[in-house]
Amino acid sequence: MSSRRIRLDLAYDGTEFAGWQWQPRGRTVQAVVEEVLRRLAGGREARLRAASRTDAGVHARQQVADARVESRLDDRQLERAFSRLLPADVRPLRVRTVDDGFHAGRAVRHKTYRYRLDLSPYGDPLAGRYAWHVGPRLDRSLLRAALAELVGRRDFTGFADSRCRVIDRVRHLERADLDERGETAFLSFRADGFLTYMVRNMVGTAVAIARGRLASGAIGTILATGDRRLAAAAAPARGLHLWSVVYEGESEADGRGG
Amino acid sequence: MSSRRIRLDLAYDGTEFAGWQWQPRGRTVQAVVEEVLRRLAGGREARLRAASRTDAGVHARQQVADARVESRLDDRQLERAFSRLLPADVRPLRVRTVDDGFHAGRAVRHKTYRYRLDLSPYGDPLAGRYAWHVGPRLDRSLLRAALAELVGRRDFTGFADSRCRVIDRVRHLERADLDERGETAFLSFRADGFLTYMVRNMVGTAVAIARGRLASGAIGTILATGDRRLAAAAAPARGLHLWSVVYEGESEADGRGG
Repeated sequence: MSSRRIRLDLAYDGTEFAGWQWQPRGRTVQAVVEEVLRRLAGGREARLRAASRTDAGVHARQQVADARVESRLDDRQLERAFSRLLPADVRPLRVRTVDDGFHAGRAVRHKTYRYRLDLSPYGDPLAGRYAWHVGPRLDRSLLRAALAELVGRRDFTGFADSRCRVIDRVRHLERADLDERGETAFLSFRADGFLTYMVRNMVGTAVAIARGRLASGAIGTILATGDRRLAAAAAPARGLHLWSVVYEGESEADGRGG
Repeated sequence: MSSRRIRLDLAYDGTEFAGWQWQPRGRTVQAVVEEVLRRLAGGREARLRAASRTDAGVHARQQVADARVESRLDDRQLERAFSRLLPADVRPLRVRTVDDGFHAGRAVRHKTYRYRLDLSPYGDPLAGRYAWHVGPRLDRSLLRAALAELVGRRDFTGFADSRCRVIDRVRHLERADLDERGETAFLSFRADGFLTYMVRNMVGTAVAIARGRLASGAIGTILATGDRRLAAAAAPARGLHLWSVVYEGESEADGRGG
């Protein structure tokens, strides 16, 4: 049996999960994948490390995890075994053997989250699991201005949840884009890292501004003061997708693209 | 109370429905919407007629129905009432008062159905409710050729289900297009009408040809002989979407577009 470290790229529908991270109660992606790893490794304990500990209800188009495995299966065979043993709402994208120094949570060049808004008047029933229905009355120029104000290397304390225990809250938000297609708007955020609830808080606040429920200067004040009570409620989890993860030395094309 | 005929455009997620048409048992879209109509009309019997009696599990981006209603609410107020009273998986798109001669099932210029294929190696968990996972090994030129062979004014008996009781099985299939985006393929079919299971049987057969499991001449033979035993199994309902309905005298833009 050869022991090696693998990088496992995954996609999942977060609807039926209590998030990524293992919990004593509640179905989590980590627990479901580790259970499969244990079956593949003949019962040995397996420990997965992820690029992003997504919250309950958040989806992933590309999540990246790593683990040590002892298995005679090659990467392609492991891929197929994951496909066979994982449930329909978690799917492998790719398995590759990596250097033992690889850690999915470190050396991340940037991650992209995408948030989907449903702009239809009464809600698109085919988007209900994957979008936040906000209706058509959003001022697009206020929305674009709000997103533009967020971009930069900043202290994002005002957009972090109170549960966030990280001390250094400076992140480099490289992009915050709006892409509208028909009655759907996609808000994409690319950064070297994100704080707990940061994307959902930014989306909730940007949408409140675009609806005229919050002054357009709010973002500047929240960033300057770090006072999250000035921000709007977090946007719901179901619209949020971990979109892609790119590591140092990788190009966008190595992952699933931006 | 003024009595009038309304046209109700609807969208629905078909996953939890036993199809459009009322049944003694089983939750159907017609039954759910008629129940709301009865509430809006103070308990009077309401009868909906639809452009298409979609099967169990089939979705609709635009379905069109009509009914007589007695209500003091104007069209916009009815729209809002439908939005409030209908469940999350059936949503109104628009209500408009029409001439009493309007019949949603008649004077249809064309309907478009769109079928979604998931070409990813192990299945996209975010498309599971709305696509058929066929994997990446589809010969695109065989697929395009199979679709092209279907187009025309033809007797589609060989692609109808045995339950189909229509006598005239000649339909004009105006378009059968393939549109590939990333790991998703959309097959769109536009015709003046469709027979029971016709789209799912055409998709099942075109995919079998593109996978090399059925000879490329099969479509010609099925059309010529009308023998449905030569066709592949029907593609699953979950990938099928009633995409748009256009009536005589209407342009694409009056509906939701092609």
